[in-house]
Amino acid sequence: MKEIASQYPRVTFLKLIDMEKQQRVMIAEAPMKVGEVVRLNGWVSVRRDHGKIVFIDLRDRSGSVQLVVVPMGNETLAESVKDVRSEFALDIIGLVKARPGKKEVVSPSDIEVEVKEIEILARPTEDLPVDVSDKEFHVNLDTLLNNRTIALRNDKVRAIFSLYSVLLEAYATACRERGFLEIKTPKILSAATEGGANFFKVKYFDREAFLAQSPQFYKQAGASAFERVFEIGTVFRAEPHFTTRHVNEYTGLDGEMAFISGVGEVMAELEGIILEIVSVLGDRGKREFDLYAMTPPPSGAIPRLRLSEAVDILKKEYGKEVEGEDIDAEGERMIGEYVSKTFGSDFVFLTHYPTALRPFYSMPSPDNPNSTETFDLIFRGVEIASGGQRIHDYAMLLGSLKRRNLDAEQFKDYLDIFKYGIPPHGGWGLGSERIIQKLLGLGSIKEAVLFPRDVKRLTP
Amino acid sequence: MKEIASQYPRVTFLKLIDMEKQQRVMIAEAPMKVGEVVRLNGWVSVRRDHGKIVFIDLRDRSGSVQLVVVPMGNETLAESVKDVRSEFALDIIGLVKARPGKKEVVSPSDIEVEVKEIEILARPTEDLPVDVSDKEFHVNLDTLLNNRTIALRNDKVRAIFSLYSVLLEAYATACRERGFLEIKTPKILSAATEGGANFFKVKYFDREAFLAQSPQFYKQAGASAFERVFEIGTVFRAEPHFTTRHVNEYTGLDGEMAFISGVGEVMAELEGIILEIVSVLGDRGKREFDLYAMTPPPSGAIPRLRLSEAVDILKKEYGKEVEGEDIDAEGERMIGEYVSKTFGSDFVFLTHYPTALRPFYSMPSPDNPNSTETFDLIFRGVEIASGGQRIHDYAMLLGSLKRRNLDAEQFKDYLDIFKYGIPPHGGWGLGSERIIQKLLGLGSIKEAVLFPRDVKRLTP
Repeated sequence: MKEIASQYPRVTFLKLIDMEKQQRVMIAEAPMKVGEVVRLNGWVSVRRDHGKIVFIDLRDRSGSVQLVVVPMGNETLAESVKDVRSEFALDIIGLVKARPGKKEVVSPSDIEVEVKEIEILARPTEDLPVDVSDKEFHVNLDTLLNNRTIALRNDKVRAIFSLYSVLLEAYATACRERGFLEIKTPKILSAATEGGANFFKVKYFDREAFLAQSPQFYKQAGASAFERVFEIGTVFRAEPHFTTRHVNEYTGLDGEMAFISGVGEVMAELEGIILEIVSVLGDRGKREFDLYAMTPPPSGAIPRLRLSEAVDILKKEYGKEVEGEDIDAEGERMIGEYVSKTFGSDFVFLTHYPTALRPFYSMPSPDNPNSTETFDLIFRGVEIASGGQRIHDYAMLLGSLKRRNLDAEQFKDYLDIFKYGIPPHGGWGLGSERIIQKLLGLGSIKEAVLFPRDVKRLTP
Repeated sequence: MKEIASQYPRVTFLKLIDMEKQQRVMIAEAPMKVGEVVRLNGWVSVRRDHGKIVFIDLRDRSGSVQLVVVPMGNETLAESVKDVRSEFALDIIGLVKARPGKKEVVSPSDIEVEVKEIEILARPTEDLPVDVSDKEFHVNLDTLLNNRTIALRNDKVRAIFSLYSVLLEAYATACRERGFLEIKTPKILSAATEGGANFFKVKYFDREAFLAQSPQFYKQAGASAFERVFEIGTVFRAEPHFTTRHVNEYTGLDGEMAFISGVGEVMAELEGIILEIVSVLGDRGKREFDLYAMTPPPSGAIPRLRLSEAVDILKKEYGKEVEGEDIDAEGERMIGEYVSKTFGSDFVFLTHYPTALRPFYSMPSPDNPNSTETFDLIFRGVEIASGGQRIHDYAMLLGSLKRRNLDAEQFKDYLDIFKYGIPPHGGWGLGSERIIQKLLGLGSIKEAVLFPRDVKRLTP
């Protein structure tokens, strides 16, 4: 490997090097010149022996290319290629050729690389538990998650996290464009406010503490100083759920804005952000959507339904009775379907949740004290966001705690925020993984989490 | 407020509305036309009564402007302005005028707004514990942190978090440009690997779990599938430190890259990212640097010193003896000073840490098994990053665990990653708050954390 290698700095596979600029170049911008010598890195997807020729599909996260190895007459090469099997990591140097029959070379599938030298960078020490080169990759959820690290090399699995990375970027960009400041709030809390049962307990030196089940209080504090804030952060939920849409640790996309005229302004801002995200993902995630045979949601204004209207629709259209306006997962699916066929929208805001279903800090509706200025955002039949206007008046907050028989002393730090003139404000919490789950039509949200945690699963 | 208000949608202060486009406009791009009617929101910094005129400095996060109120002959206005004091949140409508003596109007300090209507959005219910309108804002650290929410309204305090938001953006952008995928790894772990004492314990349903003290293992797993990954995430450290540079919860900026030729490539990539961040912050943080009378670091290549050279320098230049090459905080400060005067650089890479000072997964130096292919990055005398090349060979990892008398069974999930062909890789973990601390010359890192956690502090 020494002789030729010194002239060709190692480059990640399919990132052909621009030798003059000494810069890495992505394949899309790379000049794929037949006759050029390239140095490539990647994993072996498949090895096929055809008589005196060995074909190897070499893969990196951007795609794959065919290597052609003719060991005869080259002892070093013969020695190196002998062992090579699936999922070996290789460093190769070779000559770019047009594939037989290809006149024009425009993509990696039009070329093959005749290998001159091979270095084995790493080799599996055990049989592979799953066939990651399988295009469809139909494995059950437990197998997928038990063998998570190796499974992430599969093209379809990797596609989920390519899209996820774009989602994180798109959310941050959409927030910044709208004047939101990015903040990071604490995840270890002194008190289990908001609701006791859903908190994980932490031993914090010599005392007991709790993991944040949302950045709620701290983002409100942030908005009370910076006006508009957003956070991308871990959310911990100690709920013993066994569903396809719950995990116990996820990444929340939160936002909070002050000086609002009402909850409508919050929904309008979130709508703008959602539509921008969807548009960016549609543009940049074509390959990922294709792999899952899914299409991005149609753009257009997001309809708004009062919760009471949704309850009526469920009864009238689906014969479903709802108690106390508490629509369950099945009800949300039905509303998603109804909105899709009626308004042609994959999204719907449900508004005006009853006070009993919302936290104490929810702003009551001006015309009805049993209703709140809150909303859920439903995407393809699953709730992906909750939000609303918050109570910003100190005395009103005290009253709300009292009506719910909650101890104001427990909420001291939170209440302190409201002693010094907090303008009207509101915001939302979005679940990042649910967005990806519904965009790609994944059976479980766990497929959209890199290393998911549920009641039973803490490994790998 | 009703009559005029309906024509002027509420806009955040100093974001004058472009009435035609119905869009919010930042002050820098806003046409500040004398004679225009504007609607503004903000907090009262100061109220000054001058006979029949009331002057109010109204402030939002972008700056402040002078309001002029003449209550006489306008009973509603007189009634509204009567109560107004510091930190009231106001919604006002008024007429833009040039300040007396100002001929050209180019910035908010050249105008004043003659108030026509005032609505009080919120008012403090208690005396303010700190004077947030104070330009210098010299309060001690405990006062600052005990009154954190209100203190965040101070211009100098807010500046820290404006710069912090740009840092988060700049890091993500620099990583994406270099082909890194953004990932989110789990923060609740089943085993206290990496080192037992520094972990917080969590009660996870019916079992014991641990909070991640770094994304180390999971980012390596990520790089083993996606080649280049980065993460911005919470890091939990159960270390009972009482210093100006430690907190128990912080935001880590991690990166990991596969198919490297050696640790030098990791340092080169991190150097590129750091220099890009510094350049972006220098451009976009002029106001923040000015407020703290600091200047961004000079650009230019980051010098690299072997740790053994640094130890020699400490002895020769500062008469400081170091045991076992374990340079303490004072030593890092001295090296920072030395590098600054010798190379004109605010940064320095210290390399080749001895095996005893580094975790078991550190790649040994090829020429010396007692040395590792690792580095620390020192910025203005404080370590802001640690990194290195990792062992990617399964058998070598087992050997490293054995030499340290660590139980391989404890590391099963981690070891599993290395069974299926992991290419050479390495990465870094940066502390985001330390960067801001040193950039602005803050006395304590706690000033750079929105709501810091230390051994004694879990509130607010």
